[in-house]
Formats: sequence, C-alpha cells, structure tokens
Amino acid sequence: MLKAAICTIGDEILIGQVLDTNSQNISKALGDIGIKTETMLSVGDDNGKIVSGIASLLHSHNIVIITGGLGPTKDDITKKALAEITGATGWHIDERQEKIITDILDKRGIAHTSNNIGQALVPDNCKVILNKCGMAPITVYRPGGDRFPNHPVLYSLPGVPYEATGALPDIMQDIRNHFSLSDIYHKTLVTFGIPESIMSDMISDWEAALPEDMKLAYLPDPAIGLRLRLSIYGGKREEEQARIDDEFDKLRPVLGNAVYGSGNDNLETVIGNMLRTASMTVSAAESCTGGRISELFTSVPGCSDYYLGSVTSYANSVKRDILGVRQETLDVFGAVSEECVKEMAAGVRRITGSDFSVATSGIAGPGGGSKDKPVGTVWIGIASPDRTTAVKYVFSGDRKRNIVSFASNALNRLRLEIENYISQLRN
Amino acid sequence: MLKAAICTIGDEILIGQVLDTNSQNISKALGDIGIKTETMLSVGDDNGKIVSGIASLLHSHNIVIITGGLGPTKDDITKKALAEITGATGWHIDERQEKIITDILDKRGIAHTSNNIGQALVPDNCKVILNKCGMAPITVYRPGGDRFPNHPVLYSLPGVPYEATGALPDIMQDIRNHFSLSDIYHKTLVTFGIPESIMSDMISDWEAALPEDMKLAYLPDPAIGLRLRLSIYGGKREEEQARIDDEFDKLRPVLGNAVYGSGNDNLETVIGNMLRTASMTVSAAESCTGGRISELFTSVPGCSDYYLGSVTSYANSVKRDILGVRQETLDVFGAVSEECVKEMAAGVRRITGSDFSVATSGIAGPGGGSKDKPVGTVWIGIASPDRTTAVKYVFSGDRKRNIVSFASNALNRLRLEIENYISQLRN
Repeated sequence: MLKAAICTIGDEILIGQVLDTNSQNISKALGDIGIKTETMLSVGDDNGKIVSGIASLLHSHNIVIITGGLGPTKDDITKKALAEITGATGWHIDERQEKIITDILDKRGIAHTSNNIGQALVPDNCKVILNKCGMAPITVYRPGGDRFPNHPVLYSLPGVPYEATGALPDIMQDIRNHFSLSDIYHKTLVTFGIPESIMSDMISDWEAALPEDMKLAYLPDPAIGLRLRLSIYGGKREEEQARIDDEFDKLRPVLGNAVYGSGNDNLETVIGNMLRTASMTVSAAESCTGGRISELFTSVPGCSDYYLGSVTSYANSVKRDILGVRQETLDVFGAVSEECVKEMAAGVRRITGSDFSVATSGIAGPGGGSKDKPVGTVWIGIASPDRTTAVKYVFSGDRKRNIVSFASNALNRLRLEIENYISQLRN
Repeated sequence: MLKAAICTIGDEILIGQVLDTNSQNISKALGDIGIKTETMLSVGDDNGKIVSGIASLLHSHNIVIITGGLGPTKDDITKKALAEITGATGWHIDERQEKIITDILDKRGIAHTSNNIGQALVPDNCKVILNKCGMAPITVYRPGGDRFPNHPVLYSLPGVPYEATGALPDIMQDIRNHFSLSDIYHKTLVTFGIPESIMSDMISDWEAALPEDMKLAYLPDPAIGLRLRLSIYGGKREEEQARIDDEFDKLRPVLGNAVYGSGNDNLETVIGNMLRTASMTVSAAESCTGGRISELFTSVPGCSDYYLGSVTSYANSVKRDILGVRQETLDVFGAVSEECVKEMAAGVRRITGSDFSVATSGIAGPGGGSKDKPVGTVWIGIASPDRTTAVKYVFSGDRKRNIVSFASNALNRLRLEIENYISQLRN
C-alpha cells in the first residue's frame, strides 16, 4: 500500500500569517487515485530544517510532495536543499520553462532579470513538469542508491496555492505512469437534513450488508451536508462502478429526498442546474446571513443564467422600504418571525421578478438572543410561483457556525421546494 | 530561545476532508507571546503514528501543543497515547470537568452515558485546564526523567476548532507562568494601497535606520492590505512601546493616507468605527463581488449601528428596477462602466437612505472578458452626502482572488472618502 507525505515549506505558514491550504488539496488529489497520505509536515525557510524534514519523509514514504521555498524572494531555498538531499551534481536551464517565464514577463512588461530567468535553472538529476500557471517549474526527483534504498519519488511544487493546485493533474498522471496503482473507484451520494448519528442508525442494516471489498466513509460538512462515499479497490471500472450504483440504489428509498446529488455536488450547484434546465430564476432576501447566500449563488460559474440578485436588509427600515415588509408586521411579530420572513421572500420575488426566492431572518449571535428567540434561531422563507412557506430552526454554535447553518438550511429548503414544484409540473 | 511544535491529529485532516485551521491559530497565539513555532505536523488516528510523532516532537522542542483524537468517536486515542508516552500509572475523574459535562448534557437533554462522562477521565500525571466550550478537558503534561531530559511541556486540546481556540488564552497564560519569557512587544501599522515591493523601496531608509533590537516584518494580505509589524524583545513595556511608537511616527508622513489602522484592524472595522462615531450609515450595491462586501460589513459585531444593507444586482434588470440604473446607461456604456457604477452607488444610497454607499461592477472571470474590459476589470463607485465618484482597477488573478481584490479595494476607496468627508466637516 503506497504511503505519501506532504511537506509545505514557508516561514509565513509557521508564523501563522498564511493558512496552509495546499496540504488539503494535495491530499484530496492523492485520495482520488487511491493513495493514502500518512504525514503532513510544515517547516520554515531554513535549509537545515528542510533537508532533515524532507530526508526523513523520503525514508519512510513512497511519495513525497512538497510546496514552497521557490523563487527569488525565497532565495530558492528548496531547490538548493533538494539538490543537496538527492546528490545533484550539476544544473541547467530548462528552455521550455524559460519560454513560459519570458512570455509572462513580456505580458506584464517586466524586464528579463537574472532573478526571473533563474527560476528555470534546475538540478541535472530532476525531471521538469512545466508550470503553466506561473514561473517556477515543478521538479521531480527519484533518488535511490544507498541513500534511499526504498526508491521514493519527490515532487517539488510552487507554494502559491493557485499554481500548486494547477500542477496536481500532471503530478497525479506522473504517479499513475510510474506506479501500478490498485484502481480505486469512489462514488459519493450527497445528502442534507439527516444528522450523522441518525444517518448511521438509519442505514446500519444496509451498511452491515455491504460486500467485504466496499468501504463506506461518512463525510460531514456544515455547508454541503452529509456525503456518503463508497470506495472499492481493483477490478474493471464499469463493473465496479455498477456494483456501487447497485448498492446506492438500495439506499435511495431509505433516504428519500434527503439525497440531493452525487460526486462534488453542493446545494448551490444542484439548485442552479434545476433552475437552468427549467428556465426559471431565483433571488434572495437576507438579514442575519449577511450576504452569504448571495455569495454561494454567485460562486457557481454560469449562475447569471438563473440568479437575478439579492437584498441584504440588515436594518428593519430596509426590510420595509425595499422589500415591502409591513411596519405592522415588524411591530407586532418582530423581524425574526414567520410573518416577516414570508413578506421578505414574497417581497424580493416581486421586486426582482424572479420565479423563486429564499429569505432568512434570525439571530446569529453572540448577542441579540432572548428567552423566546435564543441565539441560533432562524426563520427561513421560500416563495415559489404557487405559494410562500416558512420554517424555523434553532442551531447551537458560535456566530460563524450559525451563519453557515442558516445559509445551508435555507438553500436546502429552497432545493426541496424547487424539486417539489418541478415534479408537480410533470404530473 | 523557546521552540514550539504543533501537532494536529485526525484522519479527517489526512484524507483532506477537513482543512486544518488549528495550527494557524495556535501559531499566532504563540507568536503573540514571542514563541517561535518550528514545526507543524499532522498525523492520523493511529496509536503508533501518534506516539512516535509526538515523542519525536517532545525531544526536539520545549513546548508541544496538540489537538484532536479526543472523545468517544475517536476512541480517545490521544489520551491513551499520551499516557503511554509520558508513563502515566493511573487514571481518575476530574470532578470539575465532569460537572461541565453533565451541565452540557442536561441542557441538551442527553443521557449521562459512560461515553460522555468518560471524557472527564484523565491520567494521574497530568494537570487539567477546564474546557468551557465543550466536554473534553485540556490536559497538560510535563514529562522528564531519563525519557525527556529536556523537560518539555505538552498541551493536549480538543480538535474542534471553536474549542481549541477557546482554550488558547488559558494555555498561553500557563506558558507565561512556567517560562520566563523574554517579553516581546509587537506593534503593527496597517496600510492599504501600496504594493509590498514599492513599500519596501519607499521605507528603505527608515528601515535601515531602525535600532538593532527592532525587527520589521512585512505581512501582506489581499483583504486587509499590508501590515508592517515592529517587534522588540525585552525591556519595560511602556518604554519599549513608546520607542516603537516613535519609529512609526517617523513613518506616517511618508505613508500618508495609505495608513488606516493598527493592530488587528481591518477595513470593515475601521470604517465601522468612523461611521459609528459620526453617527452616519452606509449601504452597498454589488454585482461581481456577489455579496462579499455585505458579508464583510456584517462580520463586524455591532455593525447594525451603521450598516443598513445591500443590493446584489447580479442581473442588469435588477440594477435597473431596484437601483434605478438607466436602461440607456446599460445600453450605451454597459454594466461595467463608470456611468453604471455611479448610478448604482447613488441608487442604493437613495433607496436605503444611507449617508454613504459603495458599489462594484466588474468582471471576476474566468469568462466575460474582452479586449476593452479584460477579466480583472472593476469599477468602484462611492457616494457621499457631497458627491459621487468612481475609479477603475484592473487586477490579474483567478476568480476567487479577483473578488477579494475588488471588495477590499472598494472598502479602501470608501474608507478614504469617509476620512475625507469627516476631516472636511472639522474644517
């Protein structure tokens, strides 16, 4: 079983200035081709720490992927350390990467300095994978001999997340070319609305009856919901994927409309696909969610096909003056109420002309709660061509977590209403 | 010089399901009291990996802080590993943490099972720091003897980020109680608008003239701007902080209105403070920023004092029908134009009744660009009681990065306009 390690290099990570996201992205990519990440390490821009840290990882893992420490501002500390670790004896300029560098510089109107061109300088014992997203090339080392009798492979990537992520497909392909991997097939069902502990009980019989060679993973996420991933090693792709599909087909009746997608689906993507297919539109009226629902809608490429816009009515005057919520409603029931959120949903639907709308009004905290309406309370309103409905939830988390829960549950209620409306159209 | 290591435990991190944010938060807290984090490690829920990983860190660092692997779903793997590493000989229930646990369970109406109460079971050789945010206590070990002649200290925290972060003040206090730390004083100037390379040139003389015992760090962030942090070790607090203030005072005339705050200030906080003090309000009209500006405003506690709300006018029909942008403007100049963004800013100011407003219209990418209006183009409009102005920027990044740049630059222009308006009021 192949074991991988990831090492992210950079003082900015160790002082807490920058959050390391490269480790997670690399680990996910490795997992998709069936390789387990055993160790994640971060060290600063220090030759001694880099050399000892990476050498140690190379001795105990088959694959080591590192990011950072490249480029003139880093004094190319990683390149020098890797040349030392792997016993490189000379250097040369990779002309293809040099061309990429000069193209980038010319486009930005920057001079061809030795600092910049020098990024194409690589040790003689490495293979270059071109960096198409930036200047520093990806280098691959396969040290061996007495130093590394386990013959590990080492990939050195740029530290900039956009460039590191851009390099992953080529790296995964290189790994596939050099290792005979047990094929691994994952298939994921995406659900929302059933907490993990309850789901575990609901599907326990099904889980117990799974074939020996299938593994189930519960992958909860407060924004996406609960993903159920079935994995299987070996065999022929179509056959194995059909077997996984069969197992999931047994599960769907149990889960009903808690299931909303598969693979990398999330609520905003699935809602978008349904609306685009039906040529229908949506808008949002937010209060406590502050703009998050709008951000989620606009995070989906092509959302302008169905997303018209939103109103974040933080002040009650804006609920009244822009959304048309009645002053009487605010006075009698308050902003966090069924009546108010239904008027917000109907209001934004009317002023934008959208087919559907979603509205939220609640108390994210830490302040603002009361005995009747504690922190974590949210009313969610949904307006469709047929009707306007509302539902209340009470969550217990801190402010950040509550806002995430408010928004994802609002999208889930919207999703259910759209599914319901569309299936009625068909009948 | 004290050296610290951080180890985050959890399969969910290693498979890439969860992004490790605990490491960054712990590292920042250590940095604030002058302790350098040398190593960050992540390992899975495996006794062997935990024991060898942590033992190795304990041998080479003075302070080791770990998170995760606690609680019944983790089979308390960390607690058992730590008892093994530190040679614990017995266990007992910490009655104070037990009380916290039963209170939480009673509040949620959950039974007092052995799994839950068992979280108060701790090895006899540790000290307990109460977890007030959750059930698993923080445990502190000070192993020594032949096993650990360097006498390191080990803190074991819950893995849930909210609970780990909540424990940090107590842990930093414990560290301060047990180590004689060189006092370290940081002071940070927060700027926006001057790129790091240009800043470096602008302040090079000042930087070269700094006293030997002062260290300058450049801390860039696409949302906050460029923070300049001066640090000094030792000496008396008031005297040293006065020396740092003197140095920054020399710098302020050079930087002019690029300086907008200090410490942990960010644009939305500083804007909020100015508006609250002046008893004035603000609204926003967004397009390409999709809701991000609204989210930034609402991320500040107490923002309801000055933030009325926003309109995300993603479709041109919404720009026209809600914000009052003229159809003629959209037809002749397009949505991404000076004319349109000024009408958006004036429009949202009018319909909300706010004193100030900020508007964005641009092309975040990847699609939608043209020769005249490439991806990364944004027009930013600002409306005040006196005037409505607009400015254009062109950024080069991916979609996510462009949206961050659009929003932070919009807030910066708003900040400058508010500063200008308020200073004119005084004159």
